[in-house]
Amino acid sequence: MLQAALAAGTAQRRSVFELFGRRLPQGRRYGVVAGVGRALDALEEFRFDDEVLETLRDVVDEPTLSWLADYRFSGDIWGYAEGETYFPYSPLAVVEGTFAEAVVLETLLLSIYNHDSAIASAASRMTLVAGERPCIEMGSRRTHEEAAVAAARAAYIAGFASSSNLMARQRYGVPTAGTSAHSFTLLHDTEEDAFRAQIASQGRGTTLLVDTYDVAEAVRRGVEIAGPELGAVRLDSGDLGVVAREVRAQLDALGAHRTRIIVTSDLDEYAIAALAAAPVDGYGVGTQLVTGSGHPTSGFVYKLVAREGDDGEMVSVAKRSKDKISIGGRKYALRRRSTAGVAQAEVVGIGTMPLDDGDDRPLLVPLVRDGKVVGRESLDAARERHRRSVAELPRAVQAMSAGDPAIPTVHLPE
Amino acid sequence: MLQAALAAGTAQRRSVFELFGRRLPQGRRYGVVAGVGRALDALEEFRFDDEVLETLRDVVDEPTLSWLADYRFSGDIWGYAEGETYFPYSPLAVVEGTFAEAVVLETLLLSIYNHDSAIASAASRMTLVAGERPCIEMGSRRTHEEAAVAAARAAYIAGFASSSNLMARQRYGVPTAGTSAHSFTLLHDTEEDAFRAQIASQGRGTTLLVDTYDVAEAVRRGVEIAGPELGAVRLDSGDLGVVAREVRAQLDALGAHRTRIIVTSDLDEYAIAALAAAPVDGYGVGTQLVTGSGHPTSGFVYKLVAREGDDGEMVSVAKRSKDKISIGGRKYALRRRSTAGVAQAEVVGIGTMPLDDGDDRPLLVPLVRDGKVVGRESLDAARERHRRSVAELPRAVQAMSAGDPAIPTVHLPE
Repeated sequence: MLQAALAAGTAQRRSVFELFGRRLPQGRRYGVVAGVGRALDALEEFRFDDEVLETLRDVVDEPTLSWLADYRFSGDIWGYAEGETYFPYSPLAVVEGTFAEAVVLETLLLSIYNHDSAIASAASRMTLVAGERPCIEMGSRRTHEEAAVAAARAAYIAGFASSSNLMARQRYGVPTAGTSAHSFTLLHDTEEDAFRAQIASQGRGTTLLVDTYDVAEAVRRGVEIAGPELGAVRLDSGDLGVVAREVRAQLDALGAHRTRIIVTSDLDEYAIAALAAAPVDGYGVGTQLVTGSGHPTSGFVYKLVAREGDDGEMVSVAKRSKDKISIGGRKYALRRRSTAGVAQAEVVGIGTMPLDDGDDRPLLVPLVRDGKVVGRESLDAARERHRRSVAELPRAVQAMSAGDPAIPTVHLPE
Repeated sequence: MLQAALAAGTAQRRSVFELFGRRLPQGRRYGVVAGVGRALDALEEFRFDDEVLETLRDVVDEPTLSWLADYRFSGDIWGYAEGETYFPYSPLAVVEGTFAEAVVLETLLLSIYNHDSAIASAASRMTLVAGERPCIEMGSRRTHEEAAVAAARAAYIAGFASSSNLMARQRYGVPTAGTSAHSFTLLHDTEEDAFRAQIASQGRGTTLLVDTYDVAEAVRRGVEIAGPELGAVRLDSGDLGVVAREVRAQLDALGAHRTRIIVTSDLDEYAIAALAAAPVDGYGVGTQLVTGSGHPTSGFVYKLVAREGDDGEMVSVAKRSKDKISIGGRKYALRRRSTAGVAQAEVVGIGTMPLDDGDDRPLLVPLVRDGKVVGRESLDAARERHRRSVAELPRAVQAMSAGDPAIPTVHLPE
């Protein structure tokens, strides 16, 4: 595309691309935008060095190679800030530049947004139903090694308390939480040896894994060794609700009233919701978090919605297709809110900014201006935005049943 | 775990870890091992540099930091070679070393094997039902940016012809196939301008995307401009089988008998199978490939199965759990085959190698010896192994209905 457009003289046409999703995953009431910070980092480093150009030598022609060698994105990007909730057709990113410089960003932006938002959207539902109980991200081993780091970051934005991914600590400052595995118990001659070794090293506040052999026996032994100051026990198998009740009763009978119960074992938002009434103090979530709980990608697309015409004027464009609807024109968006501050609609203006009723909230913020990143912020700012954005959604958003998006998307025509 | 084991003096116990899956994803008849080459590359580079150690300073104690600073895996790894098919409880990798040096590989190995094998397993079913028609990988935008490169590699091993991921070309030599998007057509004032620009740049052998406006009109125009030498047309919407038949008839009527029809649009193995009777010449597969077609992770685990006891003798170990079965002991494996060369069973020996009946095939090959990678091979070798391994499975493996694994796994007790 790039080579043909450069040769045809159309590559330099001013263009507006929009990144959006046509629908939420089945049953979801809202989505969460994540990956914005990673996308900005990646954009700054998006260059075609000699090694890359050498690879492309058999793929594209000389003029294209030479254009790529000088590539720097020099346009503008507006978008939803990280952690924000979104709905069908929310204009999550609006990229304006020449066709050439904007089209080559397609895969980069979509990969990051599609992945990170899928994780954050699943994570948000989990933290919502977990309420005050912390969720701990422990899914690294069930996804690509780099996706794992991004998943830990996205989960933190969506309210997870911590992650077992140490690279997420190094790169993004995500708080660390560890755990011991069955292998640690099995390494030792007896479970008692393993518990003693762990407590000697990590202190009494540590979390002991108690289901390698017999749970009741392990709990008894753990409290015997650590005393009532034992931090927590972890359950990783069986009917977690039933076992948690038994273990709570046992711990209380042993005087270990403050020893917490952490559960793991293929948890998802439904399992977490089902455990709401069980005496559980924290959830370790793995596979279902890093795979987006049934929806590992967000289905975002990146479509040309406007471009310069022959006469230099901008023209709205969209393909005609019955099954994949795109809406031409540059978009603006605000979250319509009641006077009580409850979200009522996602209002998308085509060509112009919808009018703020006074209680509304504009959703597009500048991310890149003249090629320079202007939208960088801390991970905690995104986490706080997520918290506020979810809190302002209608109460129905907590429903775990399948249903429509929490608020409708309303398009205001050009 | 590492810190506690170092302090307890158990970290140096000789240990055997096994990487395996307890089941195939629902309905799958076999799985495909991928990621072996990437895992070996990652293992060679698995070090804890100053920056990492600084990050870990608040997580682990001084002796552990100092142990990590000197970390080099010095043990042995045997495993299924890349591209091989696998079944429940196939011992995909057997890692032997001290507990400390082997336990820290858990997340690295599982991440790579779980991801890459999930993609290869989905890809293999797609290429199996596609038969002689090429499958083109175009899912990069729907997964994490680095997972995308690994997915293109895994898909190639499992028989995909090419990928649109250019980094997969650079890193692994995966053949490149491109496509033009609707944005390219929309950039131009008319579809005719777009087609002329593409053909001028890419030649008559190019693939024109014909569903931006009206398919019949676009096909007519494409052949008018390129002549019957037009390489291919791409359909990305509508009922692909119906439209393909119409387009084939139109192309033939225009004398473009050799112009191929490529279809895309959320294809998976079922859609590909359903198009078997349609005049389609190639499949572009995106989302469903990179997300493992409903199964984005393989569910592999990494379990301690044997370790040195107090007396220096190796002891088989396994946790007692009703819902997550592990089998202790070092494993060996061979594929039992009939005299006609058809696979009959996955035979897993505990502690000793099962006897080869003469027609059987041992499955574990040395990958790492004394810390040195010895199992590196070309991507094409893995691709060829995949082809042969699938060809030797019973015919029933082609069934798209849900069903049991193509062959049973048989454990030979210690």
